[in-house]
Amino acid sequence: MTASSSAPERARVKLKPKANARALRHGFPWVYANELVADRRTRKLTPGSLAVLEDDGMTSMGLVAVNPESKIIARMLDTDPAAEINQDWFATRLRRALDLREQLYDAPYYRLVHAESDGLPGVVIDRFGDICVVQPNAAWAETHLEQLTAALQEVTGVATVLKNASGRARGLEGLDDVSAALHGTAPEAAVEVTMNGATYMADLTGGQKTGLFYDQRDNHAFAAKLVKPGAKVLDVFSHVGGFGLAMLAAGAAKATCVDGSAPALELARQGAVASGFEDRFTALQGDAFDVLTQLSDDGAQFDVVICDPPAFAPSKQTLEAGLRAYERIAKLAAPLVAPGGYLGLCSCSHAADLSRFRNASARGIGRGGRRSQLLHTGYAGADHPQLPQLAESGYLKAVFFRLD
Amino acid sequence: MTASSSAPERARVKLKPKANARALRHGFPWVYANELVADRRTRKLTPGSLAVLEDDGMTSMGLVAVNPESKIIARMLDTDPAAEINQDWFATRLRRALDLREQLYDAPYYRLVHAESDGLPGVVIDRFGDICVVQPNAAWAETHLEQLTAALQEVTGVATVLKNASGRARGLEGLDDVSAALHGTAPEAAVEVTMNGATYMADLTGGQKTGLFYDQRDNHAFAAKLVKPGAKVLDVFSHVGGFGLAMLAAGAAKATCVDGSAPALELARQGAVASGFEDRFTALQGDAFDVLTQLSDDGAQFDVVICDPPAFAPSKQTLEAGLRAYERIAKLAAPLVAPGGYLGLCSCSHAADLSRFRNASARGIGRGGRRSQLLHTGYAGADHPQLPQLAESGYLKAVFFRLD
Repeated sequence: MTASSSAPERARVKLKPKANARALRHGFPWVYANELVADRRTRKLTPGSLAVLEDDGMTSMGLVAVNPESKIIARMLDTDPAAEINQDWFATRLRRALDLREQLYDAPYYRLVHAESDGLPGVVIDRFGDICVVQPNAAWAETHLEQLTAALQEVTGVATVLKNASGRARGLEGLDDVSAALHGTAPEAAVEVTMNGATYMADLTGGQKTGLFYDQRDNHAFAAKLVKPGAKVLDVFSHVGGFGLAMLAAGAAKATCVDGSAPALELARQGAVASGFEDRFTALQGDAFDVLTQLSDDGAQFDVVICDPPAFAPSKQTLEAGLRAYERIAKLAAPLVAPGGYLGLCSCSHAADLSRFRNASARGIGRGGRRSQLLHTGYAGADHPQLPQLAESGYLKAVFFRLD
Repeated sequence: MTASSSAPERARVKLKPKANARALRHGFPWVYANELVADRRTRKLTPGSLAVLEDDGMTSMGLVAVNPESKIIARMLDTDPAAEINQDWFATRLRRALDLREQLYDAPYYRLVHAESDGLPGVVIDRFGDICVVQPNAAWAETHLEQLTAALQEVTGVATVLKNASGRARGLEGLDDVSAALHGTAPEAAVEVTMNGATYMADLTGGQKTGLFYDQRDNHAFAAKLVKPGAKVLDVFSHVGGFGLAMLAAGAAKATCVDGSAPALELARQGAVASGFEDRFTALQGDAFDVLTQLSDDGAQFDVVICDPPAFAPSKQTLEAGLRAYERIAKLAAPLVAPGGYLGLCSCSHAADLSRFRNASARGIGRGGRRSQLLHTGYAGADHPQLPQLAESGYLKAVFFRLD
């Protein structure tokens, strides 16, 4: 028997006439549940099953991963309906992803795979030198984890592959939240990562997301350019010190990192020590709104202030409240900026597009009693590419103002 | 007699009730002709006159420059209605502008004043080391050119101040197009400017705009990051070689610069010579659409292709035609990109916002038969700050794609 004749016949799933087949043909990667004919066979498919997608004229459109439990009921894996999803298939996609990152970065610390836009729907992989952390945030990735892990070792040669199952998207896919070491052994201590001249500590097993926010690297670099020798800087919602340590590396005389999380601040402190900045580093644990208010009451002034809050507007339902929160952050932060100093404000809210976020920020600065110039708008770094078809909202936005 | 009593009483101009006084109070810098009470005294004001702006309740809002001949009938100069617009006043604003640029750049080559956002409405000043080129694109700037020039020498110490009167906005203000040397002597040859490791030749008296497009500097730098050793690159609408020379500096084996202007290509060639890149530099004069078509017919392939056309959609009326032109450029350029190579597309059209321009570009790439990832979105550099109140359209956009 040949390999092809031994392969079981693939399931077929069919688009409804109203579905946007044209968008799919042009690279849109998702089929929503209401776009697919939900016959008994389709509903019975195991989450993560592979199937051939057909348009309403029975023409094969490609190979999809189906999850009847998800609102995104099918994700396009390959325009070839006969593609075999094996180690070779993963290796081809991983090599393409690696080629881009090796072009962009001098050292192997980056987001290696950014899901759909790297051809691996729902799969996020961050690389920390000899360690990769995989987030299989879609059912098909969970069921193909073995081939993916093998391909990852084959292509990158990393010694350790960890699975991080903390992503919120996994719940929507009906997946558990049990993290594990897929290959090698999880590191016992935080891992050192050098970016923009600072050393960061990434907790790959207990931290937020995959331990470090690579997406802000370019924005950290821009903030660092604003630092005059001797500057006092404030990094609010600092996590492990992303902006604060980069600004210390650029010559800031003193950085104050504010975060609600004691473990995150401890990692920031360890990063400051590893960087040789401990004498210029201060951590302040507390609610950011309270701390900003307190600093303002104390008449504190900083040469650069950065606020990088969690997503205040993660969904359309929370948009208005989220924009009010962004405005409030800007209003509280503005008075803390010394005359001629700089204010950087970030949003990682999908629902708040750039223009809404920028306007809320500018309004807050005005209500904080300050006039401003907008100097720079930054997004996630190029190791977080986007599918043009999904780029509308570009989740991460950073706007940098100079205040009179 | 004291100075204040000797000063002639200032003219007063009055907002109509329907005018957006609130926006003006929050930093919007313009009054449109239909927002101002057009009494005989206002209509009789000389273009460039100073006046106190009053709201419809007779409250003074600030000092404006009035031009009854312009659609922008008044520009806010100072929130203090009693401000004296003299050398000191200009010097204060120029110092603020200089402080930002000295923070951002190692060498004195940058846009020093970006009009409204630097507090000097309608005034653009580019600096080339010891030379400043002033574009007084509003009537008030023309009438105050002497004080501005004196302040510019005082603050920057430059030896030469040139006036470039070629800006299209001058016509809207009723101003002539006669350029001149305001101080010192215009250089006889093109001036060398180093950016991103390349030497550019800027023609400060005969060239486009003020001789060089500083606004693209960060986008040149991003394009340079995409260059692999030995890469072949194509710079379409190259002007003096902005992208091409930066990519040669990054190690490209061969750069082809395409432009319709022979003088611009000659400056690009001189820049390549000055940079030591002449062996790797090729100039191709011709219509960009024709050249792209021809290269495609020849089966030419490049590792990086950049297209930085003139504004195809300078106004709302030209938006649809402009977007079709951007799409066509993308469609023609995409087949020239080698598999896994990069395509950078730029727009300096006010009317085409980022999302429209990006979508037109992505559509063109698709129609050119290619799939893409969007890697990076760039704007004008931070020496081109924006007023948040005017930031909606951010004229310059650059989108960088990687093509399969």
